[in-house]
Amino acid sequence: MTTYIGLLGCGTVGAAVAEMLLTEEALLAKRSGQSLALKRILIRDNGKTRNPKIPANLFTTKPDDILNDPEIKIVVEVMGGVEPAKTLSMRAIKSGKLLVTANKHLLALHGAEIFRAAAKAGSCVCFEASCGGAIPIVLALTRGLIANEIDQVVGIVNGTCNYILSEMSSTGKSYASALAEAQAAGYAEPDPTLDVTGGDSAHKLAILASLAFGVHVPFEQIHVSGINTIDDMDLRFGRELGYVCKLLAIAEKHGHGISLRVHPTFVPQKHLLANVNGSFNAIAVVGHASGQTIHYGRGAGGRPTASAIIADIVEAAMGTAPLLFKQLPLLTRRSAARIVPMHDVTSRHYLRMMVDDKPGMLHQITGILGKRGISLAAMVQHEAHEDQFVPLVIMTHKAPDGNVTEAVAKINRLRGIRSHTRHIRVIDPPQ
Amino acid sequence: MTTYIGLLGCGTVGAAVAEMLLTEEALLAKRSGQSLALKRILIRDNGKTRNPKIPANLFTTKPDDILNDPEIKIVVEVMGGVEPAKTLSMRAIKSGKLLVTANKHLLALHGAEIFRAAAKAGSCVCFEASCGGAIPIVLALTRGLIANEIDQVVGIVNGTCNYILSEMSSTGKSYASALAEAQAAGYAEPDPTLDVTGGDSAHKLAILASLAFGVHVPFEQIHVSGINTIDDMDLRFGRELGYVCKLLAIAEKHGHGISLRVHPTFVPQKHLLANVNGSFNAIAVVGHASGQTIHYGRGAGGRPTASAIIADIVEAAMGTAPLLFKQLPLLTRRSAARIVPMHDVTSRHYLRMMVDDKPGMLHQITGILGKRGISLAAMVQHEAHEDQFVPLVIMTHKAPDGNVTEAVAKINRLRGIRSHTRHIRVIDPPQ
Repeated sequence: MTTYIGLLGCGTVGAAVAEMLLTEEALLAKRSGQSLALKRILIRDNGKTRNPKIPANLFTTKPDDILNDPEIKIVVEVMGGVEPAKTLSMRAIKSGKLLVTANKHLLALHGAEIFRAAAKAGSCVCFEASCGGAIPIVLALTRGLIANEIDQVVGIVNGTCNYILSEMSSTGKSYASALAEAQAAGYAEPDPTLDVTGGDSAHKLAILASLAFGVHVPFEQIHVSGINTIDDMDLRFGRELGYVCKLLAIAEKHGHGISLRVHPTFVPQKHLLANVNGSFNAIAVVGHASGQTIHYGRGAGGRPTASAIIADIVEAAMGTAPLLFKQLPLLTRRSAARIVPMHDVTSRHYLRMMVDDKPGMLHQITGILGKRGISLAAMVQHEAHEDQFVPLVIMTHKAPDGNVTEAVAKINRLRGIRSHTRHIRVIDPPQ
Repeated sequence: MTTYIGLLGCGTVGAAVAEMLLTEEALLAKRSGQSLALKRILIRDNGKTRNPKIPANLFTTKPDDILNDPEIKIVVEVMGGVEPAKTLSMRAIKSGKLLVTANKHLLALHGAEIFRAAAKAGSCVCFEASCGGAIPIVLALTRGLIANEIDQVVGIVNGTCNYILSEMSSTGKSYASALAEAQAAGYAEPDPTLDVTGGDSAHKLAILASLAFGVHVPFEQIHVSGINTIDDMDLRFGRELGYVCKLLAIAEKHGHGISLRVHPTFVPQKHLLANVNGSFNAIAVVGHASGQTIHYGRGAGGRPTASAIIADIVEAAMGTAPLLFKQLPLLTRRSAARIVPMHDVTSRHYLRMMVDDKPGMLHQITGILGKRGISLAAMVQHEAHEDQFVPLVIMTHKAPDGNVTEAVAKINRLRGIRSHTRHIRVIDPPQ
């Protein structure tokens, strides 16, 4: 029996899905046992040049050609963004079609509503491609690791940022020139804002945390800072101390609550996550029985994302996805998350100040830190050369984030401190 | 509705499964939506001291108490070895019970027969725990990466060997003392033969390759060599050349055939697999759409293995596993594998000879290699000290395995070559 599929959107990912469904029908049937047929593709602009492997008669600009076609059983949403993706996805669900989506932005903001609607309509939502591209991380969290109480999810989930940070680390380039190079190589968008500010990572974190902890994640409560303020000087100091800088998305259990944060993070060089380079993604999960597992692969790109989307299509066609969606509490019967505020999150911290090379500065700085219970684990200060201001690097022992940000604000107001003190959190590998 | 479970075996893994099912019932129900109840546990020896968290009345020495109990829907086989595991598993399947097994040995040798029987009986076989412990690699190959033509599977799948090699590399210990330490630390069995000779890795490779390529793997055609002949001197030379030694299980597509092999392998230091240390496992999969994914975690131990077994129990209870088993060709409708013989497999090679420090030796050796089309990529020879024999290390360009083993046999027969020439294959990371 053939399962008919409608595609909403035909950008990089949509075109890759369409091409695989059309040209690799035999391979997919052999591998999955399913006969899958792409019936229509919704596009916005009929005038655009399209992949010549996709027959022109599949394209339509009318959503109804897909949403009102009773033969189409599975709708794949690869438009991205919130609207019109949301309206069309809700219509698909309500008409009983099974929804496969790669849209992390939509799910992070409106996942609860969409999942509820799907449960009510007896439909299902599959979203493997929304996080980690080709990496089967949704599968791992909802199935492979289902027996575990999850303590921590830590991911490099944005390939653009990882590419830029890897380039900065390996070549000593500045942020601006690494970004320009990433754009030239196609690893960063012409407008990279959503990536470099950490927004895209936060979308993915919202989805991963909801699965790991079985909770609704209030997206706006995720603490987010990006890589756009990272100075190559700090990457060098980090290396000197044994760390590599990565933009990490972290969800962690703290007592009865969870903390949720995206920020540049120093990772010990020996940790596998420190060795994830270029545009690759990797997600580490710590479960109470499994211990740590790490899931690594291409987090973006047409074909890697299509790999995940087609896996979802197969499970939808096979009937396993609807069965799972109906029964798995992580998907539709989530409790409200208790979010631990950022100022209560405890970690080690890297601070780099530009300090006037005169007596008494270190005494004042250590006074401010000590008063807030922040103790020093390591310190680096090289001799001054041309400048009267020298970088002073402090690595702290574990301390609450709020105490450190308060201390940094105070330090920034000292006479003899130039420019903004850099503050990078440090993560320790799980035991 | 409660699903009743019978356990065959109560060693390290069985006891961990039992303890989790008994003491974490609420967590499992909350996470999975399934109410799971352990009803009976088959043991061999009633006299042994058991985990006090397991009520004594669950134990039985009579298989019929499980296999003839109509209330028991899922049978979990964690006895290991071929018999009586095979007979009991076949009985469970034939009486319509769903089988969950961690038994790689059994599946590698008799998987085809067991899967056929399960398909015929309308039962199913779940075996996530048979490879990679807590790592959801069976899930990845059968579901997450189902849309891919798989080109290569490369795994570190034996924690004992990886622990020993990691210790040898990091401390310079000999094989014998690293093994003794692994035994003292509980990472190696009192009789470690099946691990260190590569047999256990080959069992897992048979299972992984059958899933990756949808074929029946004739176990006896896997080329197997173990770590028990590894000399710490070669690990040092490898490091000098930029490589780390790992016992890899490799299944690779070559034209219309596949090659299957387990052997100590030099992995470039930058490759993530080179950075998998201690008793951890990692499996790299290269798919035509996904590119490379890597799946890392604890490959053995009671609770990590129980994590995978309970995930299988949940899917069996939920009904997704039987549905998948019925439909997925990779599981039950496999073709016969076309195995590429080892002598046709092409790779780079590391050779270390103990050479008499006299004129003409290098000339003879390069002559033997050159005659078989083997060209040199790098060579290391340090000055002789006390001994008249000096190690000569050669790294070749790509060459067929048969040519190299033939050349090595010839070199070993040269006058002026002492002891056995060491030959370690080198793997290149995928593009």
